[in-house]
Amino acid sequence: MDGITVDRRTYQRSASGITVLAHFLGLTALILLIIWLLHYREGLDLDSDNPSRVFNVHPFLMYFGFIFFAAEAMMAYKTVAATHQVQKFVHLFFNLVSLVLGIVGIHAVFKYHDKLNLKDMTSLHSWIGMVTLCLFILQWLFGFSLFLFSQASTAYTRARALPWHINGGRALLYMAICAAETGLMQKASFLRLGDSRESHLVNVLGVLILVFGITVDISVALARYV
Amino acid sequence: MDGITVDRRTYQRSASGITVLAHFLGLTALILLIIWLLHYREGLDLDSDNPSRVFNVHPFLMYFGFIFFAAEAMMAYKTVAATHQVQKFVHLFFNLVSLVLGIVGIHAVFKYHDKLNLKDMTSLHSWIGMVTLCLFILQWLFGFSLFLFSQASTAYTRARALPWHINGGRALLYMAICAAETGLMQKASFLRLGDSRESHLVNVLGVLILVFGITVDISVALARYV
Repeated sequence: MDGITVDRRTYQRSASGITVLAHFLGLTALILLIIWLLHYREGLDLDSDNPSRVFNVHPFLMYFGFIFFAAEAMMAYKTVAATHQVQKFVHLFFNLVSLVLGIVGIHAVFKYHDKLNLKDMTSLHSWIGMVTLCLFILQWLFGFSLFLFSQASTAYTRARALPWHINGGRALLYMAICAAETGLMQKASFLRLGDSRESHLVNVLGVLILVFGITVDISVALARYV
Repeated sequence: MDGITVDRRTYQRSASGITVLAHFLGLTALILLIIWLLHYREGLDLDSDNPSRVFNVHPFLMYFGFIFFAAEAMMAYKTVAATHQVQKFVHLFFNLVSLVLGIVGIHAVFKYHDKLNLKDMTSLHSWIGMVTLCLFILQWLFGFSLFLFSQASTAYTRARALPWHINGGRALLYMAICAAETGLMQKASFLRLGDSRESHLVNVLGVLILVFGITVDISVALARYV
């Protein structure tokens, strides 16, 4: 812009600040989610006879397992204080944890539907969530084969693929956030929460998850300026 | 990455292709939305005595007015074939249209609530939507005062603020998409659409709006590599 350049450390400082904020928001959302599931709902247990307790494993694992770990993986790539190889490995490993817990989380909601003889995959939430998980698995395999086994690709291929991997990951983060928001919206409508204290808690939780996603994304975007 | 640079034209071509795809997805979503409101619902009219027709103005204006124009504004900044001053003006003007139609769209849903004596601002959808519109107005004023009246800011201030303006705009786009998705989810739950043809249409509409947002974001992100 007009040939003016800004000292990169300006954005480095901002990126660090926003990364700290992101961890804080992510953990606060986790605490609110646990309070919601334990205090307002009936707790969580994948092997329970109570369908509600089986269901509650779903929001817990989709947020804490899928979204939180994937978001931490995005930030870890730049912020883990270690060699670049270690950063890459942490990035890959956190995303693997996210993927596995996400699959278990989806299993939980299918099990809940089975118990109540409900149809699967009818809502917008289910469509967004399933598309997100499938693309996430592809993105993980793509990243694993292209960037971890450097022998399998040329440096040029990797450099050319990198913006697609970064932007694909960012898009997937927002897709997962949309899945979470529609999921909370669906549950709040289903439970007819109206204007209760529980609905306020769910709304604050939804806004926190959204702002968490935004701070993670902006911390990664600013880090690209560094 | 390993000191390898990729020819910028590679991303320029990709950004152009994705911009075309974005226009196409955005218009397809608009057509589906109109089909939904006219064929499955009762049409739209802000001055109707039928509350449903008043309500239907809300999804129409929030998507076509608010999201679509703001997304076109984001792409116009780089893609309008004119001088940079004209690009900036188109960017600002489209965002102004988006802002005004967004306010009318929110008026429509408040009017609907009044007619049925429903409480305002109780759902997660309403919270996300209102926060998004308020921050969008601030972002517009910020952009207007900082970038349009170049006398009012130094080139350094503008260069320093630019990544915040870009990333803030991208975050607002995703917030607006989340508002749309939660809105569709809320309406589908409220109408108890279940596994009907109408619910399939709403789900496809929701997925299209989401993918539209992602293509707009990626086209802008890749343009930064150009």
